[in-house]
Amino acid sequence: MKIWQKNVDVNQFVEHFTVGKDRELDLQMAKFDVLGSLAHTEMLETINLLTAEELKTIQQELKNIYAEIEAGHFTIEDTVEDVHSQVEWLLTQRIGEAGKKIHSGRSRNDQVLVDLKLFFRACIEDMVNQTSMLFNQLIELSNTHKDKLLPGYTHLQIAMPSSFGLWFGAYAESLADDMELMLAAWKITNKNPLGSAAGYGSSFPLNRTLTTKLLGFETLNYNVVYAQMGRGKTERILAQAMSAVAATLAKMAMDVCLFINQNFGFISFPPELTTGSSIMPHKKNPDVFELIRSRCNKIQALPNEIAMMITNLPSGYHRDLQLLKENLFPAITSLNECLEIATFMFQNITIKDDILKDKKYDYLFSVEVVNELALQGIPFREAYKIVGEQIESGTFAPSDQIHHTHEGSIGNLCNEQITDAMNAVLAQFGFEKVNKAIADLIA
Amino acid sequence: MKIWQKNVDVNQFVEHFTVGKDRELDLQMAKFDVLGSLAHTEMLETINLLTAEELKTIQQELKNIYAEIEAGHFTIEDTVEDVHSQVEWLLTQRIGEAGKKIHSGRSRNDQVLVDLKLFFRACIEDMVNQTSMLFNQLIELSNTHKDKLLPGYTHLQIAMPSSFGLWFGAYAESLADDMELMLAAWKITNKNPLGSAAGYGSSFPLNRTLTTKLLGFETLNYNVVYAQMGRGKTERILAQAMSAVAATLAKMAMDVCLFINQNFGFISFPPELTTGSSIMPHKKNPDVFELIRSRCNKIQALPNEIAMMITNLPSGYHRDLQLLKENLFPAITSLNECLEIATFMFQNITIKDDILKDKKYDYLFSVEVVNELALQGIPFREAYKIVGEQIESGTFAPSDQIHHTHEGSIGNLCNEQITDAMNAVLAQFGFEKVNKAIADLIA
Amino acid sequence: MKIWQKNVDVNQFVEHFTVGKDRELDLQMAKFDVLGSLAHTEMLETINLLTAEELKTIQQELKNIYAEIEAGHFTIEDTVEDVHSQVEWLLTQRIGEAGKKIHSGRSRNDQVLVDLKLFFRACIEDMVNQTSMLFNQLIELSNTHKDKLLPGYTHLQIAMPSSFGLWFGAYAESLADDMELMLAAWKITNKNPLGSAAGYGSSFPLNRTLTTKLLGFETLNYNVVYAQMGRGKTERILAQAMSAVAATLAKMAMDVCLFINQNFGFISFPPELTTGSSIMPHKKNPDVFELIRSRCNKIQALPNEIAMMITNLPSGYHRDLQLLKENLFPAITSLNECLEIATFMFQNITIKDDILKDKKYDYLFSVEVVNELALQGIPFREAYKIVGEQIESGTFAPSDQIHHTHEGSIGNLCNEQITDAMNAVLAQFGFEKVNKAIADLIA
Amino acid sequence: MKIWQKNVDVNQFVEHFTVGKDRELDLQMAKFDVLGSLAHTEMLETINLLTAEELKTIQQELKNIYAEIEAGHFTIEDTVEDVHSQVEWLLTQRIGEAGKKIHSGRSRNDQVLVDLKLFFRACIEDMVNQTSMLFNQLIELSNTHKDKLLPGYTHLQIAMPSSFGLWFGAYAESLADDMELMLAAWKITNKNPLGSAAGYGSSFPLNRTLTTKLLGFETLNYNVVYAQMGRGKTERILAQAMSAVAATLAKMAMDVCLFINQNFGFISFPPELTTGSSIMPHKKNPDVFELIRSRCNKIQALPNEIAMMITNLPSGYHRDLQLLKENLFPAITSLNECLEIATFMFQNITIKDDILKDKKYDYLFSVEVVNELALQGIPFREAYKIVGEQIESGTFAPSDQIHHTHEGSIGNLCNEQITDAMNAVLAQFGFEKVNKAIADLIA
Repeated sequence: MKIWQKNVDVNQFVEHFTVGKDRELDLQMAKFDVLGSLAHTEMLETINLLTAEELKTIQQELKNIYAEIEAGHFTIEDTVEDVHSQVEWLLTQRIGEAGKKIHSGRSRNDQVLVDLKLFFRACIEDMVNQTSMLFNQLIELSNTHKDKLLPGYTHLQIAMPSSFGLWFGAYAESLADDMELMLAAWKITNKNPLGSAAGYGSSFPLNRTLTTKLLGFETLNYNVVYAQMGRGKTERILAQAMSAVAATLAKMAMDVCLFINQNFGFISFPPELTTGSSIMPHKKNPDVFELIRSRCNKIQALPNEIAMMITNLPSGYHRDLQLLKENLFPAITSLNECLEIATFMFQNITIKDDILKDKKYDYLFSVEVVNELALQGIPFREAYKIVGEQIESGTFAPSDQIHHTHEGSIGNLCNEQITDAMNAVLAQFGFEKVNKAIADLIA
Repeated sequence: MKIWQKNVDVNQFVEHFTVGKDRELDLQMAKFDVLGSLAHTEMLETINLLTAEELKTIQQELKNIYAEIEAGHFTIEDTVEDVHSQVEWLLTQRIGEAGKKIHSGRSRNDQVLVDLKLFFRACIEDMVNQTSMLFNQLIELSNTHKDKLLPGYTHLQIAMPSSFGLWFGAYAESLADDMELMLAAWKITNKNPLGSAAGYGSSFPLNRTLTTKLLGFETLNYNVVYAQMGRGKTERILAQAMSAVAATLAKMAMDVCLFINQNFGFISFPPELTTGSSIMPHKKNPDVFELIRSRCNKIQALPNEIAMMITNLPSGYHRDLQLLKENLFPAITSLNECLEIATFMFQNITIKDDILKDKKYDYLFSVEVVNELALQGIPFREAYKIVGEQIESGTFAPSDQIHHTHEGSIGNLCNEQITDAMNAVLAQFGFEKVNKAIADLIA
Repeated sequence: MKIWQKNVDVNQFVEHFTVGKDRELDLQMAKFDVLGSLAHTEMLETINLLTAEELKTIQQELKNIYAEIEAGHFTIEDTVEDVHSQVEWLLTQRIGEAGKKIHSGRSRNDQVLVDLKLFFRACIEDMVNQTSMLFNQLIELSNTHKDKLLPGYTHLQIAMPSSFGLWFGAYAESLADDMELMLAAWKITNKNPLGSAAGYGSSFPLNRTLTTKLLGFETLNYNVVYAQMGRGKTERILAQAMSAVAATLAKMAMDVCLFINQNFGFISFPPELTTGSSIMPHKKNPDVFELIRSRCNKIQALPNEIAMMITNLPSGYHRDLQLLKENLFPAITSLNECLEIATFMFQNITIKDDILKDKKYDYLFSVEVVNELALQGIPFREAYKIVGEQIESGTFAPSDQIHHTHEGSIGNLCNEQITDAMNAVLAQFGFEKVNKAIADLIA
Repeated sequence: MKIWQKNVDVNQFVEHFTVGKDRELDLQMAKFDVLGSLAHTEMLETINLLTAEELKTIQQELKNIYAEIEAGHFTIEDTVEDVHSQVEWLLTQRIGEAGKKIHSGRSRNDQVLVDLKLFFRACIEDMVNQTSMLFNQLIELSNTHKDKLLPGYTHLQIAMPSSFGLWFGAYAESLADDMELMLAAWKITNKNPLGSAAGYGSSFPLNRTLTTKLLGFETLNYNVVYAQMGRGKTERILAQAMSAVAATLAKMAMDVCLFINQNFGFISFPPELTTGSSIMPHKKNPDVFELIRSRCNKIQALPNEIAMMITNLPSGYHRDLQLLKENLFPAITSLNECLEIATFMFQNITIKDDILKDKKYDYLFSVEVVNELALQGIPFREAYKIVGEQIESGTFAPSDQIHHTHEGSIGNLCNEQITDAMNAVLAQFGFEKVNKAIADLIA
């Protein structure tokens, strides 16, 4: 009952296989495809491959299509292969022959490349903004709960006093560092591949510097063979940057699942944000955090998947690259949702008071007491011995206060410096410049 | 015949298992362990945990040990667990009780953290320098062979004319982009974790800003819980940066293996740099490039391995982290060797002349001829039809020259701009500042 | 503009996040959910948790629903969370209170577990059948083209004569070996988890042996804690088995892409099965094989993704497991499509004749000639020297015939033995027994 | 200061790079290289490529070398490239020209292939035996502690009663399932590649069936091109089988680290098997289990690494394959050590009594009580309501006994059936037959 045993159109079978999910996934690139064409045609007119008249007509109609996409009125028809064909087909339907001229000096290859880069730029901006919101939430919680202590574990064994100030702040600082990787991905993305044609350039006297400027790119992927290599590489590096944020979120989610467990019981969330069981009233299943963890671990596996799909392909375009969209595009949405819902959940977190009053945490303070004696002048070795004996004889009394003063410690969280560091990274993206160029292009 | 069935010391079995390869791997960290102690002790004296006298003695002996390490006279003894213990033991052997004081206000955890960061900084500098040398070699070859054409492939099908100028230049530009990721790894590495103790800070009034300055770090990992999270995270991100360079090398090696194959036959290397067979005189096995490819693909798998080992570990130290050294340390050496030998091999490459004279490459020029006609004023559609008919009738004459003029094309490689871009990234590392601080510390 | 900044139903946000793609993906499990319920309720009646009357009503309606699913009339409504709820809801709508009783002695956890196992069994049968068809096609081509020689490469260097008989047969034998891994996945899948409830069993006197028999499982996952551990583990192992087939396909696709390249030019496909360019008449882009390669490499990354998502989760159910469906389900469809289209493409392959007549392949025969002389009694070393001198002096004449006789060589392909080996593995699955049980259940 | 800037022997640089770690790693293959040669030469005599006299001399000396290897007196010299050359060189040194004849009808490629397969067979036997010992230990502990209850968690939330009988037994059954994958790896490994020469067979009339029998292989890799494909594929599949065992161990280790944590406190180990701190007497760091977890997660990443290194390599030998040994060989040793030390640790485990007496676990029993009422005839819905109200009003009294009777539940562990299942898999390996063949060969 296989397709080739019947008298059917063979091409349909092959076409179904080769088109894959493009019609669905390409929708996300539609706006960016139009932007690429706006810049490309503006450039074509400067090298006399379009007349001023043609350009005007084309630009007007491209802007109409752009508006339709923004309004949600754009679809890719079943008879059309992908977004690029759909836009071109619409254009030609509406303005006639001039519509076909927009493909001069351009290949499908560099068209996809530039669409992807423009799309990824917008995605990075979204992810950075979402990360920034979670960062702010964490810093706020760190400041609010800076005096609430919890046990610090090493080897998952009770070890030293920690605090919710430290715990929240740690994940904030982690996100700030993750932004360094996102910035690297941004820099690699924010270079113009348009004009590389099929990966070997064009004999037309294209002005790539002009399209670079029009599209707000920082610079060009100069070498056209390298521009083509950017396909796959950009995706892999973007996925790596996303995996950094994902790793931070996954670890935080693991902590949350542990801390909400009844054996720990450090934190809780309102019933409507957890799932439970009326017959097991103690159950507050942290489904949201389990799913954040799972989604983020999946994202952590993404760079490897991309590498596996492109490794050992010689230079030049291969159709293999088409499939990189399939897991990457949804992963971007997924990461944003994780960041958003994590922020939301943390807005509703409740921290248990006086956790360390429980006797099982007494020994947390042993090192504190030793250090205290040492600072009072008792030799460290002696102090250590004294406390050891107190513990053995059961007379050890934990200190009820923590005096940590150094940078980044319980008593001196340095959240302002961490926020400064975050802001310093964020400032380097320069989203405004990019957005200004796009606004000008579409104006 | 299992160990626990005999009357042996159980601890030996457990100890063998837990020590693992530390004694061997830690040797690479020895110098950096001493540096960390130099900075830590200098700081301890400022907060009165060491006397000026003690400090002087300690620093002198630490510098002696540093010199011994540099001279290759340092080993970790079988009775000693790791490099940190070995240095401390040597010190105490030589200067007595004062030697034991260097551990005040420090835990094994932040000691390892700072050692790793100092070590990775040196590794990154090495990798950047090796990358820079290969980059220069590629640019030089690109300039030298800029007029030598070769077929450009898409779908691995003969498509358009390319050139060795483009081919070499593409990999150079790829390395320049890879340095953005290395720079992100550098920034994340170049922050001071010392003072985070076991991951929860210390009740001693440590001056972390001072040790940051002494060790030449750009800034601190402020939050002490986050500083501890840096273990594993730093390794993963460094491995990701390495994987970017590795991906570029692996792809280049794949191209080389294809181009040296007799069906392509575009390039060759001297017999002493390939392996062959006296009875199959045509064989020039590109073993070096096959091994570059294999090593680099292995490095591409490394970030995933690290992620797999640390995923879903809650915050706080876990012994799991110890094993991250096992594949990462050799991978650093391996990547440097790949960069070095690739540079060497390319110094000895021979490029075949007149590759495109072979008739099978004639159709490469079809698009060129169409564009030429189009630029002469014939409508594109008409030009396209003319050339199509020439091809069908067998009268198509390939153009013997290529006139590509736009940025990054065969006729305008933009190698200077690519070099400028590379230099702009390299300038941001600031190795000199770091090296100056280290030189001061050890002076 | 975030959801929590507006006056909306918070639960919607959380629900949207937690439901994810379940409504879409669960459709594939619908039939199997009904099967599980048929077996479970039949068992419940034997332990008096259902009356004979109730059972009859339930079974009749479940079979109705099964028929609706088969007819494509089943959907999961937006107000319903997943397939299990939808089936239960339909049942209760139609037969009232009795419908709710089917959940006695069962938890959502073991219900999903058994659904997945039943679904995976069907998937494995499909994949095995598709593999078997490709296997047969390859064996047929191997026999048909057994006399057509092609160059054999080592290090991608021309090395020794090979044949299309060998080439096709090699991939057939590879698939046969891959079935060993699929068989292991089948054995691990084909065990009954039903009755493990939430992973800790039930105080009801369930008869798990009965449901095992009814559902055609070979045996039980006995230990209920282990039964729960099967979630994730089964998926990972199934993905590993799929990755074996995928690796074979991907390698074959890489060979095809190389062999269809004009520098090799060993094989071709009809124009309607490749994509081309009217202006580059030589281009026959092997898109189908590039996409097979890409899809299969993606499948090769899948076991790692699953491992990353479940590693370091302690025992017991976690919501993380829900997301394993997202990439695995489509991967199963994708692998089947790859197997199907590969079979189809190979039905249409054309092999070039007399490839080795090209002079560049002359040296392929040097070892043959040496061996021939050796078999004629000339000492090997002497023969080797003679041929070496002939080659150097340009007088070497390649033999025009190949006499390989040993098992598995050009002249003795052993395709019958390979087919026997394949059949021996296939026979061990025992799909008939399973299908008979299912047919009885639904009768 | 690079090697090629000095007046040194270039070949040394290339040789160092290409030899890599072969001299060290190949030692593990030495015995198996001799076994391969024993079988190969015995076959060569039957086809008249060796005289009976030559065979006798060769076999005697090979057996001497085998004995030397077993006695630990074999090394690979610095001037020799690998183990194969070393054995051949030794042989020729001792018996003269006849020693060189052993390479007739064989290539380095199939020699390595057969060595690896013989080596992997021995490794699999070791791993299976170690797994079997751990399995027995777990079953024993399950039986011993079958009445000791602990909380069962879902979503890491306290959910239902579990038992140490279940917990230990679950991991035993997991290992039994893992052996299915190991068996698949064994079957794929236990096929003879010898005679495939460089991957394209030989013009000598080799008798591959004879060497198959002599080496105790179950059957042949028939097709010689496929035999060569076995390189990399065998490694990947073996690594996948190892990853199954590793996943079981890693999960178990995670549970142990959690259960030994003071917030759980379910189990403990003697002080000499944990690490602690005299000043934090509560600390019992489970280093051994953290390292089992870490090592096993590393092994879980291994199949992916291998896939990354071989993906998209066309058919035929590539030097890339040489490097697969580097992480695989140590991983085999590491997995065996993990299995061994886990067995040892469990021999020394202490289980806390009466864990569920703690009031925080009361609600565990709510479902039990509901089911009890239901079995007494109270409608489920009613029972559920009654217990819900008891819980709400604080009058709920947990049952102090658990009556689970079904297969695999707390009261009916089915450890005998699980043991039978394990033994049924183990019986299929047939190590005796293999070992008998090897003993005959070396006799």
